[in-house]
Amino acid sequence: MFALEGMRLISDAAAAGTVLERVMATPEFVKKYGRITEEIQTAAKQFEIISEALAQYISDVKVPQGVFALAKKLDKPLDTATIKKGEKFLLLCSIRDPGNVGTMLRTADAMGFCGVILHDCCDLYNPKTVRATMGGLFHIDLYFCGDLPGLLNRLRQESVSTLACVVEADAEPMSQAPKEGVLLIGNEANGLPEEIVRRCSRRVTIPMRGRAESLNAAVAAAICMYEFQR
Amino acid sequence: MFALEGMRLISDAAAAGTVLERVMATPEFVKKYGRITEEIQTAAKQFEIISEALAQYISDVKVPQGVFALAKKLDKPLDTATIKKGEKFLLLCSIRDPGNVGTMLRTADAMGFCGVILHDCCDLYNPKTVRATMGGLFHIDLYFCGDLPGLLNRLRQESVSTLACVVEADAEPMSQAPKEGVLLIGNEANGLPEEIVRRCSRRVTIPMRGRAESLNAAVAAAICMYEFQR
Repeated sequence: MFALEGMRLISDAAAAGTVLERVMATPEFVKKYGRITEEIQTAAKQFEIISEALAQYISDVKVPQGVFALAKKLDKPLDTATIKKGEKFLLLCSIRDPGNVGTMLRTADAMGFCGVILHDCCDLYNPKTVRATMGGLFHIDLYFCGDLPGLLNRLRQESVSTLACVVEADAEPMSQAPKEGVLLIGNEANGLPEEIVRRCSRRVTIPMRGRAESLNAAVAAAICMYEFQR
Repeated sequence: MFALEGMRLISDAAAAGTVLERVMATPEFVKKYGRITEEIQTAAKQFEIISEALAQYISDVKVPQGVFALAKKLDKPLDTATIKKGEKFLLLCSIRDPGNVGTMLRTADAMGFCGVILHDCCDLYNPKTVRATMGGLFHIDLYFCGDLPGLLNRLRQESVSTLACVVEADAEPMSQAPKEGVLLIGNEANGLPEEIVRRCSRRVTIPMRGRAESLNAAVAAAICMYEFQR
């Protein structure tokens, strides 16, 4: 299970049909947000009233709203039938910053992606990641991938496009690349490993004009995902 | 003045011609990075060796590299001649997160923007903002604007396009908007105030397909800036 905190996130989870194993709220929260409490309660297997002091103790923020939940983890098993030709998936490889992973999930949801696959990333269920998704993690399919070279080989056999996002200016501009398949984004400091790039069907990049050497990883992912649906 | 920390940031500042009023380095830093120390020293008015203990004390990070600088603030006065028709400027209105402001500056640099104007934002010289720019703040012109309605009225008289980025789906898709002028991005939670949007020449938006209600502000700014140079 993983922890959720805050009215917006928990009511988003409830609205998306996420099963809430346990919900805890302070009397002040229930009094202030009666109707929302009812909605949340409907999605909750177990509902408890907790004290302000306990809310303060378990909260991840300075000023807690007074509502917390435990939900079953959302990731699904990645099997051979998960990624079909013509669909759009985001694959994150060794992304270390929880805010970046969360922001990328939020953008993938907004850009109509089918799912996000995480390989060697920071914890998906870290409160910072969850918060940065702004509810996006309840709307999109999530997968973990251990054997990335194996997955890329299989996708190649199935003729699914795999687009490695790189910083080198000699790669194909994203605006000219095919708009389907799996988009791979690499680590904030080092990008994608060369051995992963080699296994992808295309190397794509975002042309840069200024003196910047690279873009923030969540920004690069957003621009590429935007091109997929432009 | 404002504080800079870390080899990369300070050598970026030196390479961009920023005058470093004072540079402080530990003996360990000087020993490890002799050639870079020389480059930094050339740009420094004053150079001092400090102890490891002092470096630890003044550092903003857990593991300091042992090099610090003070530089004159970089913002320039915003006058009537600053923004010319046909140029590209980013205008940030009430952005609260230092990481967002820094990331937007970094992206503006990469997308070849002329400058960034800040109105009612968090501190540009906050170490978190400076760090997130990845050196971008040394490459791009920076301005503060107090009277935003006044600026927008003047730009309208001079026929400079002003594009207000909004979340409403009835606005013009960014892909169809003119690719010049001033792009306005609003607060993370509330967007641009209605009275500011009304004074702009166009309302632009990024079409969304999923269940997300909005994008991260730095992501929205990045996609719009990318469209400016696509």
